[in-house]
Amino acid sequence: MHNPQLNANGELTHLLSIEGLPREVIVHILDTASSFLKVSAREVKKVPLLRGKSVFNLFFENSTRTRTTFEIAAKRLSADVINLDVTRSSTAKGETLLDTVDNLVAMHADMFVVRHAASGAPHLIADHLRRLQRSDVHVVNAGDGRHAHPTQGLLDMYTIRHYKRDFSQLVVAIVGDILHSRVARSDIHALTTLGVAEVRAVGPQTLLPACVESMGVRVFNDLRLGLRDCDVVIMLRLQNERMSGTLLPSAREYFRCYGLTPAMLELAKPEAIVMHPGPMNRGVEIDSDVADGPQAVILPQVTYGIAVRMAVMSIIAGN
Amino acid sequence: MHNPQLNANGELTHLLSIEGLPREVIVHILDTASSFLKVSAREVKKVPLLRGKSVFNLFFENSTRTRTTFEIAAKRLSADVINLDVTRSSTAKGETLLDTVDNLVAMHADMFVVRHAASGAPHLIADHLRRLQRSDVHVVNAGDGRHAHPTQGLLDMYTIRHYKRDFSQLVVAIVGDILHSRVARSDIHALTTLGVAEVRAVGPQTLLPACVESMGVRVFNDLRLGLRDCDVVIMLRLQNERMSGTLLPSAREYFRCYGLTPAMLELAKPEAIVMHPGPMNRGVEIDSDVADGPQAVILPQVTYGIAVRMAVMSIIAGN
Amino acid sequence: MHNPQLNANGELTHLLSIEGLPREVIVHILDTASSFLKVSAREVKKVPLLRGKSVFNLFFENSTRTRTTFEIAAKRLSADVINLDVTRSSTAKGETLLDTVDNLVAMHADMFVVRHAASGAPHLIADHLRRLQRSDVHVVNAGDGRHAHPTQGLLDMYTIRHYKRDFSQLVVAIVGDILHSRVARSDIHALTTLGVAEVRAVGPQTLLPACVESMGVRVFNDLRLGLRDCDVVIMLRLQNERMSGTLLPSAREYFRCYGLTPAMLELAKPEAIVMHPGPMNRGVEIDSDVADGPQAVILPQVTYGIAVRMAVMSIIAGN
Repeated sequence: MHNPQLNANGELTHLLSIEGLPREVIVHILDTASSFLKVSAREVKKVPLLRGKSVFNLFFENSTRTRTTFEIAAKRLSADVINLDVTRSSTAKGETLLDTVDNLVAMHADMFVVRHAASGAPHLIADHLRRLQRSDVHVVNAGDGRHAHPTQGLLDMYTIRHYKRDFSQLVVAIVGDILHSRVARSDIHALTTLGVAEVRAVGPQTLLPACVESMGVRVFNDLRLGLRDCDVVIMLRLQNERMSGTLLPSAREYFRCYGLTPAMLELAKPEAIVMHPGPMNRGVEIDSDVADGPQAVILPQVTYGIAVRMAVMSIIAGN
Repeated sequence: MHNPQLNANGELTHLLSIEGLPREVIVHILDTASSFLKVSAREVKKVPLLRGKSVFNLFFENSTRTRTTFEIAAKRLSADVINLDVTRSSTAKGETLLDTVDNLVAMHADMFVVRHAASGAPHLIADHLRRLQRSDVHVVNAGDGRHAHPTQGLLDMYTIRHYKRDFSQLVVAIVGDILHSRVARSDIHALTTLGVAEVRAVGPQTLLPACVESMGVRVFNDLRLGLRDCDVVIMLRLQNERMSGTLLPSAREYFRCYGLTPAMLELAKPEAIVMHPGPMNRGVEIDSDVADGPQAVILPQVTYGIAVRMAVMSIIAGN
Repeated sequence: MHNPQLNANGELTHLLSIEGLPREVIVHILDTASSFLKVSAREVKKVPLLRGKSVFNLFFENSTRTRTTFEIAAKRLSADVINLDVTRSSTAKGETLLDTVDNLVAMHADMFVVRHAASGAPHLIADHLRRLQRSDVHVVNAGDGRHAHPTQGLLDMYTIRHYKRDFSQLVVAIVGDILHSRVARSDIHALTTLGVAEVRAVGPQTLLPACVESMGVRVFNDLRLGLRDCDVVIMLRLQNERMSGTLLPSAREYFRCYGLTPAMLELAKPEAIVMHPGPMNRGVEIDSDVADGPQAVILPQVTYGIAVRMAVMSIIAGN
C-alpha cells in the first residue's frame, strides 16, 4: 500500500503518523533536528529556509502549548505564520473542513499544521491535496484524536537517543492512560521501528487498549513490575476528565498505584531517564521530587521539540 | 462633492466604497493586482513595499476568513501586522471608536483595515484622519454593515475581467439575499462603473432592497428568467439567521426556488462562470455539483482576492 | 538588600518596579527612549536590535491596549513576538506559573512581558530565573495587581520631562482612585526618585491608601485645593466596578467632585499639562473639553510609551 506521507522518491512530504514511517526517514529527521538545535541556541535564532512561505496553524482543538511550539519553529525558519482561530471561523459557520483547506490553498498556503479531535483529519487533508495534485502543499499532524501525535513521538526519540545513544538494548516503560493517548501510540510505533529491546505498557486495565499487545508491547498492570530494570520511563498525562467516574476511582487512588515517586523510580535502572509530554499534573501521575529530580529530562524534551519541528517542516517543504 | 477616498491629486488614499470611485482608479487597482498575482506564486512570496509599516486589523465584527486574507496580503508586502481583538479591548471598556483610533495613530499606525457592523464606520475614521491632517494614515474598508465590501467587489471584477476580458457586452446576474448584502452593493457599483451591458438582481421580493432598480439593475423574482443567457452568475451567501422566520419559509424551500443547480445553470450561456464570495452553504444557495463543477471560479476568486488586497494596500500607502 | 532588577554591575536586567530603581537608570531609559522616538517616525520603523529574539507576551489579565504597545515595540526592534492566550493555555489546565515559564525557557525564550492580577508575579519569575542562573532571560512587568506598572510610570516621566524639562521645581497632582492604581504607585516612586518639589495624592478618602503619606506625598480630599498651582495633573481611570457600591456613591457624583473640567483646571498653573493613562472615561473622571483641549498631552503619552518600551526591552536584552 502506498504510504501517503512519502512521495514517489520515498521522501517525506507530509508528517501524518509514525506508523509506517521507514527507519531511515526517522533517523534523517533526528539528524536534521540535531543541526537545528544549534540555531535555537544562537544569538540570532533564525535561518531563512522557509522565508516567504505561509504556514497555517489549523487548530480545531485548543492547545496553546503545541501551537506555540510550531509557531516558534516556523518563525525560526523565517516563515510567515498565520494562526487561524478555527473555532470562530468559517468552519464554525458550517463550511466543511475541505472547503476551508481549498480556500487556504487558493491563498497560496505552503503548509498546514493541523490539530483535530477526529482521528484521520490530517490524512483526509493530505489525500485531498494529492487528488488536487498539489504536491507543493504539506501537512503536519499536530495531534489527531486518539490516533497520533508524531512530532511528540519524534522528540521523544530524539531525547532517548541523546541520553542513551543506542536503542537496541533499551527497555522503555510507558506509564498511564495509554488507551486515550496519541503520544503513547506514536511512541510505541517509533520505538518498535527503531528496534528497542522491549516496550512496556504500564497502567490499570481500564486505561489499556484491548489490542495493545498486538502492537508488540508487554503489558503490566503493576507499576513496580513495569518499572523494574527499565532504562526509560515515559509518564503520560492523566486527563482531568478521566480522574473521576467509571474508569478510575479518584486522582488520589491513581497516584497511590501509578504515580511516579522517588521510591518507585528506584526500581528502574539507576541511570534511567524520566520523560513526560507535559503539561504535568504534579501529585497525580508524577511526584514533584521526580519531576524536578536529576533523572527527569522533561525540559530538554521541550527544547528538542522545537528542533524536531524545525526539522520536520524544513524536510517536508524541501521535498 | 469631494470624494473622501481620493487626495487632491485624485489618487486613492483610502478604500471606503466602490461607489464614486472613478473607472480609471478601479482599472489601476486591477492592473496592479495582476503584477502581485505573480508574487504569490513565487518561491519567496514577499516584496518589501510595506516593510516597517504597521498595519492594524480592527475587526469589530468577527470574520476570520477576511481578516486572514488581509493579514496574508500585508505580510507578503512585508508589513508588521497587528490583530486587535477589539471585542475584548478598550472599546469594550467604553472607549469611543475615535479614541481607539487616536491611540493607534499615536503609536504610529500606518493603515487600518476596518470591519464594523455599522455602515459608515470606516468613513468616520477617514474623516477623522482628514481633520487631524494625517494624510499618511490610511483606511481600508473590510466590510461595513450592509453598506460596502469594496475589496470583495474589486476581486469579483478582477475575476470577471480574467475570464471575460471585456465588460461591455456582459450580462451579470447577482442571485440571492441582495437586501442584506454589502457584496451585492459593491458589485453593482463596480459593474455599473465598468460599463457592463446589464446587471440583474435575482431573488425573492423580501430579499431585494426597495430602491434596487434605481441602482441601474433589472429585477427578477424568477431565477429561471434571471439566469437566461447571462455570462456571469454571482451567488450570494444566505446568512443562517435569514433561513427561518419572516423573510423566508425555510432553507429547503429557498434551495428549491433559488438554489443554483446544474439544471438551472444550463439556462445561462454555456461558457458562463459561477462566482460566490464564500463561505458557501452547499445545498442552500448552491448545489455541490455546481460549486465543484467546471464553470465555478470560486477558488480563483480567493487567489485574486489576495492580489487585489496587496494592490489596494500598496497603492494607498504610496499616495 | 539586593535589587533583583539589576545585575552585579548595577545594570538593568529586568524591569519589575520603579521602586528601588536608581535615578541614573531611570534617566538612562528616558535618554534611550529619546533616540527610539525617531525610529517610530521613520519610513521604515524598524531597527534590528532584537532580531532573532523571541519575546513572549504572557498576559494573565486581559489588556489589549498594553499588549499591543509591547507587541509594536518588540516588532520595531525586529523581535519575534509570540502572544500566549494564557487564559486558554496549560496554566488553565492546572500547570503552575513556574512550570509554564520553565517550558518557555526551554523553548529558548529571551524575554517575558508579564501582566498578572497577582502583585509580585513578575518578581516571582525573575527570582526563578536567577535560581536557574538564566541571566540571559529577561522579565518586563506590564502591570501586576495593585503593585506596579513601571513602563507606564516611565512613559509618564518621559512626558513630563519632554514638556517641563526640569523636575526639581514641579508640583504634580495625581487625581482619583489611588488606592487601586498601580500607575499611581509607579508614578509616585518615579517622581520621588527624580526629585520633584511636591507630589499630591488627590481623591476621596475611600480611594486613598492608608499609608499613602509615608510614600512622601501630600494628601488632598478637595480637588480644588489639590490642583492649586500645580504644574502637572495626572488623572487616573476610574474602574467601572468602583463606580457604584460601597466606595463611591455614583459616577455622576464622582464627576461632580473629582472630574477634571475646564473650570477646575484653571486652578492649576496656566501652562499645566494634563495626563491620563487611558482608556479614558469621558464624563466620569475627565471632561471632554479637557481631554481634547490644549493642555492635554494624553496622546503624546501613547507615542512616548512605544519609545520607552523599546528602550526598556533593548536595554535589558543588552545586559
